[in-house]
Amino acid sequence: MSEAKRSGRQARQVERAKKGGGMGRPYITRNIPTYDVLSEENLLKVEAAADRILAETGIEFRDDPEALELWRGAGAKVDGVLVKFEPGMLREILRSAPEVFTQHARNPANSVQIGGKNVVFSPAYGSPFVMDLDRGRRFGTLEDFRNFIMLAQSSPNFHHSGGTICEPTDIAVNKRHLDMVTAHIELSDRPFMGSVTSEERAEDSIEMSRILFGREFVNDNCVILGNVNVNSPLVWDGTMTKVLRAYARANQAAVIVPFILGGAMGPVTNAGGIAQSLAETMAGCALTQLERKGAPVIFGNFLSSMSLRSGSPTFGTPEPAIGSMVIGQLARRLKLPLRCSGNFTTSKLPDAQAMMEGTMSMLAAIHCGANFILHSAGFLDGLLSMSYEKFMLDADLCGALHSYLDGVVIDDDHLGVEAFAEVGPGNHFFGCSHTMAHYETAFWDSDLSDNEPYEKWEAAGSVDAATRANGLWKRRLAEFEAPALDPGLREGLRDYVEAKKRGMADAWY
Amino acid sequence: MSEAKRSGRQARQVERAKKGGGMGRPYITRNIPTYDVLSEENLLKVEAAADRILAETGIEFRDDPEALELWRGAGAKVDGVLVKFEPGMLREILRSAPEVFTQHARNPANSVQIGGKNVVFSPAYGSPFVMDLDRGRRFGTLEDFRNFIMLAQSSPNFHHSGGTICEPTDIAVNKRHLDMVTAHIELSDRPFMGSVTSEERAEDSIEMSRILFGREFVNDNCVILGNVNVNSPLVWDGTMTKVLRAYARANQAAVIVPFILGGAMGPVTNAGGIAQSLAETMAGCALTQLERKGAPVIFGNFLSSMSLRSGSPTFGTPEPAIGSMVIGQLARRLKLPLRCSGNFTTSKLPDAQAMMEGTMSMLAAIHCGANFILHSAGFLDGLLSMSYEKFMLDADLCGALHSYLDGVVIDDDHLGVEAFAEVGPGNHFFGCSHTMAHYETAFWDSDLSDNEPYEKWEAAGSVDAATRANGLWKRRLAEFEAPALDPGLREGLRDYVEAKKRGMADAWY
Repeated sequence: MSEAKRSGRQARQVERAKKGGGMGRPYITRNIPTYDVLSEENLLKVEAAADRILAETGIEFRDDPEALELWRGAGAKVDGVLVKFEPGMLREILRSAPEVFTQHARNPANSVQIGGKNVVFSPAYGSPFVMDLDRGRRFGTLEDFRNFIMLAQSSPNFHHSGGTICEPTDIAVNKRHLDMVTAHIELSDRPFMGSVTSEERAEDSIEMSRILFGREFVNDNCVILGNVNVNSPLVWDGTMTKVLRAYARANQAAVIVPFILGGAMGPVTNAGGIAQSLAETMAGCALTQLERKGAPVIFGNFLSSMSLRSGSPTFGTPEPAIGSMVIGQLARRLKLPLRCSGNFTTSKLPDAQAMMEGTMSMLAAIHCGANFILHSAGFLDGLLSMSYEKFMLDADLCGALHSYLDGVVIDDDHLGVEAFAEVGPGNHFFGCSHTMAHYETAFWDSDLSDNEPYEKWEAAGSVDAATRANGLWKRRLAEFEAPALDPGLREGLRDYVEAKKRGMADAWY
Repeated sequence: MSEAKRSGRQARQVERAKKGGGMGRPYITRNIPTYDVLSEENLLKVEAAADRILAETGIEFRDDPEALELWRGAGAKVDGVLVKFEPGMLREILRSAPEVFTQHARNPANSVQIGGKNVVFSPAYGSPFVMDLDRGRRFGTLEDFRNFIMLAQSSPNFHHSGGTICEPTDIAVNKRHLDMVTAHIELSDRPFMGSVTSEERAEDSIEMSRILFGREFVNDNCVILGNVNVNSPLVWDGTMTKVLRAYARANQAAVIVPFILGGAMGPVTNAGGIAQSLAETMAGCALTQLERKGAPVIFGNFLSSMSLRSGSPTFGTPEPAIGSMVIGQLARRLKLPLRCSGNFTTSKLPDAQAMMEGTMSMLAAIHCGANFILHSAGFLDGLLSMSYEKFMLDADLCGALHSYLDGVVIDDDHLGVEAFAEVGPGNHFFGCSHTMAHYETAFWDSDLSDNEPYEKWEAAGSVDAATRANGLWKRRLAEFEAPALDPGLREGLRDYVEAKKRGMADAWY
């Protein structure tokens, strides 16, 4: 097949590979619209509810006098730690935030555009445990952490190295961010995330980015993300606001994420949780703009539900999935990049439940127009565990979603009316010229799915998808080669980390 | 909680239960829009391509001189068995087909509306094999067939009893339709489907419906569906056209379904397969109207893909999923009820692959606006096997999709602004009045998903979802009670079946 005949997708992949930027696309630009489920009238009702929550109940900003000072200066009503906002005030502040921004990777070919029609897949984030089929569940270590970076980097289906993929619990809490950022830089050449567990650790993460990219470049460009959680309902604690201000101050992007478990940290109704999420996220995003006007920021959210029998949190359920569509519409009305949903499940194993829940919630992210999809892969047991096998299964789903987001190409060549004249009624299309011209690029090809005849599958051992995933992650780790890194930069980073570590006793909080 | 406070959904369920119509809703009326991915301009291109295929290449109608006569009478160009259609001709004929129709169930509370905003879930259809975790794969029997009807009937998540849920291979081919229709009528009080393997068997199925509903009622109302396949590409064979005409003649609904495996029975490109599907389905649907103007008919389709490595068919892949959205748009422009997609997979087990593929393709059916969703549950191994465990897992997904299709209710009560004032920043919503008022109806509750803490799950034996499904189908079968059936009707049906069977030697084709 001549290169001229390759589809745009394939051509772009080839182009990318030539640039030495690794495999696949640096990010996806969606060729299908978002799925908008709510009418203008109902969207206005949600926005009005959020405005009332902000104006009447307000949000507490605890342990951060500077944040209160910023709010006071912006005209909010500050009473102790409680801040109330006149309707429209936050929207006005948010006008300075960029609709789309670039997060740079150390390999420029892997830099991502966040916002607009762009979609970036990033691994799951924050599990204390890891799991695999051989060893079961155990606390995550730095080795696990590094393994997951390598598995992400070696897959063409991700665009981002992520952040705290699992907690490296064998490293002191006050030092692990240094090892995590080092691992992202050394083992991946994609964009990554920094620490958010304290202002100092955020500053360390940003400082390491400055060593990698240069101080001036970092002041002018986004090179690191920090994922910051609201303490829902309606509380921002000082650790988080200091961290989000640190990222904004450095012109780096905070991801502002209320985690709302409906019925616990917010109303049990979907509409109420969405209104609350909008209120909390707007406040956090606006604070970044007060800290530094024009700093990039991502409108984040994490809707969840609960089991009515046990009160346990549930993930990958239908209400948060359809609620995500509304969140997407709200974010676009604010002209902010969106983080929403991901590959969620409460299952303890990479089984049928895991992928039923995961696929439903991941497709919600795709349909709602999420630009930065954290938790794209590995999420198990309500985010308590990072699963090696589920990571590979989810990576496969991420691959499928590339083709899904490409939509249906409609042109004379793809409609292929001439092919029918060539083939005629009752004959097959196997060898016709239209098939030959499109064969290589027509369909997504799974790394893991079994499509063989039953007898062939049986002869190969009757294995399930999780078992195949188990084999694949081991092969990928065995074959891994880290992307080249300038030795001077590597040394500079290591010097920084060593100096920081020497200056601190281990602390486990 | 007072009944007045229940949500509309719950209220409807309660209402339904009171009527004695079994569990759940008789069908779903979607409260979310369809997901329209293609522009008007591109839809016109697809329609123009279908028109060109119909006018320039044409469709063969083999072994059915009466069908050719109908086409000739309608003004088509008939040359031997090849029929060509002027652009616009089929659209004009299709104007007489109803946009929505009722398929009646023997329990009137279970009658379904097919078309418009309505969604009907029906089990998978046509597997020669069945599978379960205990006995593995084996040929289906009448006992399996009856089991699956009972499993569907005992779940609130289906609305239809389906058709050939699996092939009862222990019964002669020329007699099994009699036992299948009998089983649907005796074990279920939901609507069902009849035979399509020959004109006589279709007539038998319809005749048995007449015994059940009365001859006059059947002439005026739809009580049975027949699922009719095109012999793609561009061939309708006589068995199928005689069957579709038999259903139409009796004022019963044919479902017109091209099965297009891209690259084999149609172009390898999505756009080409969609244009072909439109052409083939329009021709089949139009033939029902020539047979009997105004007969109900369903615009069906079955897009599929293939493995680029092996040439094997693949199911539950992204291209057919996103292609379904286009099919939905095209069907709505014709104002015809739609059958599209289902819970597809090539996996041989009820594992992670099965539910990743199944959820992707089932959500495609939901998003594209399919009204009658055949293959909602049980489909395994590219439809070669009907799986007991996957049936239960898919039934659970169907339950989730009820809540998904209910969308996000936006009103003052669900927005719950007052709840924030009541709870205040930093406090939980567990016991507040808003939570108490909505708790019972807020979230879908899975029959199968494990949402317990890890330790509790481990203590319960660390079982996976498929194992839980295995337990559930056995419990459901053990507890099954058939819905009451008038003994006179039962006797009438049995007399008919016995007389028919006596009159034929067993045949195995």
